[in-house]
Amino acid sequence: MAVHTYREQIRTRGEADVIDITPLAQKVLARSRLSNGILNAFVPGSTAGITTIEFESGAVRDLQAAIERLAPRNIHYDHDRRWGDGNGYSHVRAALLKAGLAVPFQDGQLLLGTWQQIVLVDFDNRPRDRLIIFQLVGE
Amino acid sequence: MAVHTYREQIRTRGEADVIDITPLAQKVLARSRLSNGILNAFVPGSTAGITTIEFESGAVRDLQAAIERLAPRNIHYDHDRRWGDGNGYSHVRAALLKAGLAVPFQDGQLLLGTWQQIVLVDFDNRPRDRLIIFQLVGE
Amino acid sequence: MAVHTYREQIRTRGEADVIDITPLAQKVLARSRLSNGILNAFVPGSTAGITTIEFESGAVRDLQAAIERLAPRNIHYDHDRRWGDGNGYSHVRAALLKAGLAVPFQDGQLLLGTWQQIVLVDFDNRPRDRLIIFQLVGE
Repeated sequence: MAVHTYREQIRTRGEADVIDITPLAQKVLARSRLSNGILNAFVPGSTAGITTIEFESGAVRDLQAAIERLAPRNIHYDHDRRWGDGNGYSHVRAALLKAGLAVPFQDGQLLLGTWQQIVLVDFDNRPRDRLIIFQLVGE
Repeated sequence: MAVHTYREQIRTRGEADVIDITPLAQKVLARSRLSNGILNAFVPGSTAGITTIEFESGAVRDLQAAIERLAPRNIHYDHDRRWGDGNGYSHVRAALLKAGLAVPFQDGQLLLGTWQQIVLVDFDNRPRDRLIIFQLVGE
Repeated sequence: MAVHTYREQIRTRGEADVIDITPLAQKVLARSRLSNGILNAFVPGSTAGITTIEFESGAVRDLQAAIERLAPRNIHYDHDRRWGDGNGYSHVRAALLKAGLAVPFQDGQLLLGTWQQIVLVDFDNRPRDRLIIFQLVGE
């Protein structure tokens, strides 16, 4: 049993940009040489989240529309009054989607569905260089 | 320390069917003979999610009603235009609830509350045979 | 590799009270003497959830407002008709936010962002003494 921790950087466009990070997860899994265990994908930051989706442009836009209904851009946020960076909705969205997801792997393969990808959703109101932590615990 | 990975199959009715999978989780935990660690319940697929709830019919219907408000069946989804399987809302709901949950166990018992069950919510628009991965990492 | 399981008790005010539990997580991480691994924060109970947020009063109020839109207090809940404790909305909110979050740590430090705190959100309709499980798997 061992723990391997990887840091990967990606460029996002913000505003609920949805980015397929499955290739990064597969790359670090291969590099770890682990066969069986948990891969925890985690974004250190309070304006992004991680989930899975069928990564095709229709479903991605549908998710973005649902997020807009859940925490609309054009309503009042107390955070904005205090901090002035105008991304109160980003914080709320990220807290609801949550910063991490633990995905099992076996025989060196992530146990995802055929049409299921791990995605980062960047809720900030501007492009960001995002650090993603991939931590693997396994054997 | 060891990793054990189990696959369990269940039949669902789709349309936000909520199924108590705690007995399956307890069964694989007993079979693993592990005492302490993490049980990660994960559904490989992009139209289902896993969470916990007090599994009684009132709370289950309340959750289903909230999900219907969050991503209603009867609005437009871009996914449907491209793929024609009419389950765009299923994808959005699953991405928001997320595919997995990590539950701690100790002395061979899941550390759930008395009125807290692990549930699969199948968001697809038809009955499904669902595979659930239970992966245990512990000692 | 080892598993350490800690129980911490906190007092909440209920009604979507948001409590920063990062200091508790850091305390148990130090006590475990583990360097690298996963800390799983989990609340055993069906009316509370765990996520991360920038813990400042504006963002906290914004999150509470979004939760109120998601599962309003003043609509009908079937759970209430059956059980009479009037916290149907608490159950729905908790099921949507989910009971746990796995956070990676390395070199004895949680890999959180600078402005990112781990929080318990207590959705119950009254003050509670809440047990939180912190389980660490690592080396």
